[in-house]
Amino acid sequence: MDYDQSYRNYREIIDEHLKRLITESEPAGLYEPIKYILFAGGKRIRPTLLLLACESLGGNYKGALNAAVAVEIFHNFTLVHDDIMDNADLRRGIQTIHKKWDMNTAILSGDAMFAIAYKLLSQTKSNRLSEIFTAFSQSAIEVCEGQALDLELETKFDVTVDDYIKMINKKTASLIKNSVKIGGLIADGSEEQILALENYGLNLGLAFQFQDDLLDVIADEEFGKSIGGDIVNGKRTFLLLRAKELTKDKDREIIMRVFNKDGIDASLVPIVKEIYYRCGVIEETQNKVKFYTELAVKSIEDLPKSRARDMLIWLANKLCERKI
Amino acid sequence: MDYDQSYRNYREIIDEHLKRLITESEPAGLYEPIKYILFAGGKRIRPTLLLLACESLGGNYKGALNAAVAVEIFHNFTLVHDDIMDNADLRRGIQTIHKKWDMNTAILSGDAMFAIAYKLLSQTKSNRLSEIFTAFSQSAIEVCEGQALDLELETKFDVTVDDYIKMINKKTASLIKNSVKIGGLIADGSEEQILALENYGLNLGLAFQFQDDLLDVIADEEFGKSIGGDIVNGKRTFLLLRAKELTKDKDREIIMRVFNKDGIDASLVPIVKEIYYRCGVIEETQNKVKFYTELAVKSIEDLPKSRARDMLIWLANKLCERKI
Repeated sequence: MDYDQSYRNYREIIDEHLKRLITESEPAGLYEPIKYILFAGGKRIRPTLLLLACESLGGNYKGALNAAVAVEIFHNFTLVHDDIMDNADLRRGIQTIHKKWDMNTAILSGDAMFAIAYKLLSQTKSNRLSEIFTAFSQSAIEVCEGQALDLELETKFDVTVDDYIKMINKKTASLIKNSVKIGGLIADGSEEQILALENYGLNLGLAFQFQDDLLDVIADEEFGKSIGGDIVNGKRTFLLLRAKELTKDKDREIIMRVFNKDGIDASLVPIVKEIYYRCGVIEETQNKVKFYTELAVKSIEDLPKSRARDMLIWLANKLCERKI
Repeated sequence: MDYDQSYRNYREIIDEHLKRLITESEPAGLYEPIKYILFAGGKRIRPTLLLLACESLGGNYKGALNAAVAVEIFHNFTLVHDDIMDNADLRRGIQTIHKKWDMNTAILSGDAMFAIAYKLLSQTKSNRLSEIFTAFSQSAIEVCEGQALDLELETKFDVTVDDYIKMINKKTASLIKNSVKIGGLIADGSEEQILALENYGLNLGLAFQFQDDLLDVIADEEFGKSIGGDIVNGKRTFLLLRAKELTKDKDREIIMRVFNKDGIDASLVPIVKEIYYRCGVIEETQNKVKFYTELAVKSIEDLPKSRARDMLIWLANKLCERKI
C-alpha cells in the first residue's frame, strides 16, 4: 500500500472513531454545531501524526485513538473561537458557527469541545497519564497565548519578525509538537525518542506555517486558495514583516500601506507580489520551509526504522509541498 | 478554632496558592484579565469543599491544593464566558472582562483559564489520575450542557419545572459534586465513601441554587443583593416556573407577563413577590433548600467522624442560610 492510501486509511479510522464517540444529541443547541464543524471534512493531520508517532515507537495505534481524536476536537475548538475573534464568515467552505447560529452558540459549543477533548484524553490507558495531560494542557495554554500574540501583532505598530516567530511557535507549532509527543508517551518511548518526536513536530509546525503564508501569495488559483487574501487584509505574515525590513523607498511605501491596512484592495495584490519576489522574501520563505522540513525529517532519522517513521518523513515532505 | 475562622484560613491558603501559581504576565492581553477576575475576591467555596472532602477521607489537604485551585479557575472561566452570553456588566462588584476590555479578550482569557485549570490538575499526585480527569471533564461538559439548557430555558415557551431541575443539576450542582468527588479520589477513598461525597455535593449544589433563586426575592437589601433582579429580567427561576403552575386568573396573568418578559419593571417586583408568597412558592422553595441541605448532610453521616467531615456539615448549613 502506498503512503497516500495509508493516509486516507488513517483519516477514515479517525473519522469513524469520531462518529462513534460523538453521539450525544441533547441539548441540540450544543451538539448540532459541534457535529457540524467536526464532520465538515478536516484533513485530520494532527491525529494522523499522533497515531504515526505512537506506532513509530512500537505502540499500537488503537491505544492512541482516543488521544488522537481529542487532539482533533481540541484543534476544531480553537478554529471555532478564532473564527469569532477574526469575524470570519467561512471555514472549510461552509459558514462558521457564529454566522450560521450565533455568537453564544459558538462560544459555548467551543467550550464543550474543549471539555470533550479532555474527557476522551482521560480514557487513554497509560502509566504516563500525568505527562500526557501536562503536554496537552501546556499546548492548550500556548495556543491561547499564541492567539493573544496574533491579536497583538495585528494592532501594534512596532512589530518584528521575531514577534512573528514567537507567535507561530505557540499558535501553530505547539499543538503539532505535543500531538506527536503524546503519541510517543502512549507508546511509552524513551526520553530521547520522545525528544526526537517533539523536535520533528515543532519544526514541521514551523515549516507548515511558513508554507501557509507563502501559499496565500503564490498558490495556483486552482489549488483552491484565494490568492492575496492576506495582502488585502493587511495580515502581518512573515512575508510582510520581512519585506518591511528588506525594502526601501517606493517599495517600502507600498509595503507600509499593507502593514497599516491603509487603502488596500485586490488591485494591489500583483504589485505587492512583485515586490515580494524582487526583495527576495519569496525565496527566503521557500528556504525556510525547506530548512524546517529538513530539520523535522532529520530529527527522527535515528528512530528505529519502521513504516510509521518513514511515513512521518513522507508526510512532512508532502505537507510542506501541500499536495494534500 | 471555630469553623468561621477555619473557613477564612482555607480561603487564605487557596488565595496564596493561586497567587504563587499564576505568575505569568506575557502576553499581557491574556494574563491581565485572568488575574483581574481571579483576584476579585471570590468566596472559594468549591476549592474549600474539595480540600475538606480530601481531609474527611484521611488525605492531606496539601496534596489536593493544585486540584482545588484548578476547580476555582475552571469556575471563574465559566463566569467569564457566561457573562459574555448574558451580556452582564458587573461581576463581584467590578466590571466584567468583556466590558472592561472587549469580547475577544474575554473569550480568549476564558479559554486560557480552562487550559490552566487542567494543567494544574495534571500536577496532582495520585494513582487515580484517570478517574480524577474523567470527573473533572465530565463536570466541564455538564456545565456547558447546563448553560445551553439555561439559554434554551430563557427563549422557549414550553418550559417546565422539570427542565429547570435538569438545568441546575448540570449548570450548578455538577461542579460542586465533582469537586468533592475529586477531593475524595485524591484521598484514595473507597467507592462507598466517594459516593457519599458525591451525594453530599450534588444535594448541596441543588440547595445552593434554590437558595440563590429565593434570595433574589426575599434577601435584605443590606445583604448586598439587589432585590427582584430576576423578576425584572423575567429570569425563569424555580419560583417563576412553579408559580406559573400554581396560579390562576389575575395572578397568572401577571406571572405570564414576567415569563414573557412583557413590559416588566421594578414597580412589579412587590406585586410578584406577594403572589409568590400567596401561591405558596416561597415556602415551597424554602422547604426545598431545607430538604436538599438535610440530604447533603445525611449523605456523609456515616463517614468516619473527623473535624473535616463536621466542617462539611457546618458549611452546608451555613451556605444554605447564606451567612457567608
